[in-house]
Amino acid sequence: EAKNKNDIFLFLLLKTKSGKYDPTQLIHSIKVGIALVFVSLLYLVDPLYDQVGENAMWAIMTVVVVFEFFAGATLSKGLNRGMGTVVGGLLGCLAATLAQEVGGIGRAVAAGTSVFIFGAAASYCRLVPSIKRKYDYGFLIFILTFNLVAVSGLRGEQVIVLARERLATIVMGFVISILTSLLIFPMWASDELHRATVNKFDHIASSIEGCLEEYFYKIDDKKESAKIIKWDGYKSVLQSKSKDETLANFARWEPWHGKFGFYHPWEKYLNIGDLLRELAISISSLKDCLQSSQQPVKPINLNFKEPCEAVAPFLACTLRELGDSIMNMQKSRPEALIVAKLQSIRLDFSEAVSDSATIMDGDGLAIASFVFLFM
Amino acid sequence: EAKNKNDIFLFLLLKTKSGKYDPTQLIHSIKVGIALVFVSLLYLVDPLYDQVGENAMWAIMTVVVVFEFFAGATLSKGLNRGMGTVVGGLLGCLAATLAQEVGGIGRAVAAGTSVFIFGAAASYCRLVPSIKRKYDYGFLIFILTFNLVAVSGLRGEQVIVLARERLATIVMGFVISILTSLLIFPMWASDELHRATVNKFDHIASSIEGCLEEYFYKIDDKKESAKIIKWDGYKSVLQSKSKDETLANFARWEPWHGKFGFYHPWEKYLNIGDLLRELAISISSLKDCLQSSQQPVKPINLNFKEPCEAVAPFLACTLRELGDSIMNMQKSRPEALIVAKLQSIRLDFSEAVSDSATIMDGDGLAIASFVFLFM
Repeated sequence: EAKNKNDIFLFLLLKTKSGKYDPTQLIHSIKVGIALVFVSLLYLVDPLYDQVGENAMWAIMTVVVVFEFFAGATLSKGLNRGMGTVVGGLLGCLAATLAQEVGGIGRAVAAGTSVFIFGAAASYCRLVPSIKRKYDYGFLIFILTFNLVAVSGLRGEQVIVLARERLATIVMGFVISILTSLLIFPMWASDELHRATVNKFDHIASSIEGCLEEYFYKIDDKKESAKIIKWDGYKSVLQSKSKDETLANFARWEPWHGKFGFYHPWEKYLNIGDLLRELAISISSLKDCLQSSQQPVKPINLNFKEPCEAVAPFLACTLRELGDSIMNMQKSRPEALIVAKLQSIRLDFSEAVSDSATIMDGDGLAIASFVFLFM
Repeated sequence: EAKNKNDIFLFLLLKTKSGKYDPTQLIHSIKVGIALVFVSLLYLVDPLYDQVGENAMWAIMTVVVVFEFFAGATLSKGLNRGMGTVVGGLLGCLAATLAQEVGGIGRAVAAGTSVFIFGAAASYCRLVPSIKRKYDYGFLIFILTFNLVAVSGLRGEQVIVLARERLATIVMGFVISILTSLLIFPMWASDELHRATVNKFDHIASSIEGCLEEYFYKIDDKKESAKIIKWDGYKSVLQSKSKDETLANFARWEPWHGKFGFYHPWEKYLNIGDLLRELAISISSLKDCLQSSQQPVKPINLNFKEPCEAVAPFLACTLRELGDSIMNMQKSRPEALIVAKLQSIRLDFSEAVSDSATIMDGDGLAIASFVFLFM
């Protein structure tokens, strides 16, 4: 029976990729709920509360803020928070001690000045794109901690003890988040990026097929010409850049798991994505040609119907093959073989089309071979 | 002398748009510093500290977290934080009171259950795209506040008093952020979106010019053929979608200022952006044609050199005109006039090119007229 349940669960998981309803979102919500309950135990269980006291608040705050959908995002936010707290706390203590030495009204002035300088400098850093991408949250927490420690230090409280206790509860919150995130159905950004890249190959392949089919269907003008393949896939590829970058960013933080090692080349996924987006652009203009009212007259089109029909399936098939080889992380056929085949087909193609409109599929080919050369 | 300083400052501001160094970033950092110093006064000035006490911490936290680069972003985050705190606090009080009624060990169980249910539900909501876009931060704060209030209520503290005091300090932090953000050199997301849209028209126009120039320059093969216009502009247009959406999102929160009313049609900026991105795609494939090795032979090209040279400046000029009319928020020439002119040029053009490669500029035209029809 347990196996049966498991099957249903797997089925739900698989449904994700096609349907709109996404059970991973439900799983994520439940995970957040579990993490919150765990961290609330610091308040709810008396022996624990006696240990941490009001500082339990910081653990709850950490869980709420740090827990993200992907494991990599949670790790990155948690580590950023930790680093920001430590660095901000240390510098804050230093500033508070220095301000104490000044004494008198100067203390407040010194504290205010240090708050201004460090706050402005860290805010400026946050705007630098390379820092913003990876360490934005760390700098935010740095500003917060520095400010809190530097000014409350003047109130004569035992800043260092306070800072240490808070750090301890933040670490507790972080550990709870990480364990819940990694141990209960972890969602890996790396898996998502891997799958999205493979899907892109598939989208482009179906778009090429669908595009040609519609083109010649239009010319043949016979209604029976089979089903038209959906070929909107290229549109999702076009707009995937920022999503890919975010995923790659998270994936870098994720520990070894499944088939991904520590130094998995995430950069290459981005490169492949860029090339596939260029292909998607070509397809988009193919579509424009198709919908344009300035179609060349029939006889010319039929001239190169045959070579096109030979090329398109080969292109689509090669793309799918490449996608599969990435999916399974196996070497595809040797590059030279594919490129040679492509070039011979291209030669046939340009001979066949010769001096009529060469643009129809020429670009596609030019860029496709470009993609293959890159891999 | 003061005027002189002002001039230098203005000069720095104007430099922004071209150079890499961006003084608005410096201004933003200084503003953050100022807001932090103001909010630190709650700690540093004794009479103020006597009023708020340790809760001053929440004011500092609010300023650090809420202060964003654009005024609209600050407003949206601040209001989200306020709403999240109020709703989370009220529901949290309710949950704590109900748990109190249960009594005994059941209290902790009741509190834990409510934390789980509300935490999971709110996390699920955060994943819904339309909520994520606008209210993500509000839901985050809701979870945080609800959790803190619901569990600390069990500790027999005066939750309602505590919640009211915290809310008051959060409001203080919010007011300081908003005043600093709006009164000292405000950065409006609406201005940025407006300018970015106008720049897109300009980028596309120069790309069309540059593209044609390079094309015929290649054919003429004479070195003297003037300077080549930079035409990489279309690339920035291609990748602008997510940035535009973010800006429009912030712009909606911004109050009336300058030439923008309360119900400025930000949606239309997004529509125009989409159309310009389609144009950028066409230009991108023009470039592919250009760099492809499969150039048609010279005589064919020269055939339609003249019509191209007539069309390109008109297209570029029309685009710039439209950009300017958006910039100055004036009505452009009546649509019918532009479209009629475009169509007559297009007719001439297709006659001139007739049955040779029609794709060269056809798409551009087709889409350009599409753009104009939309406006």
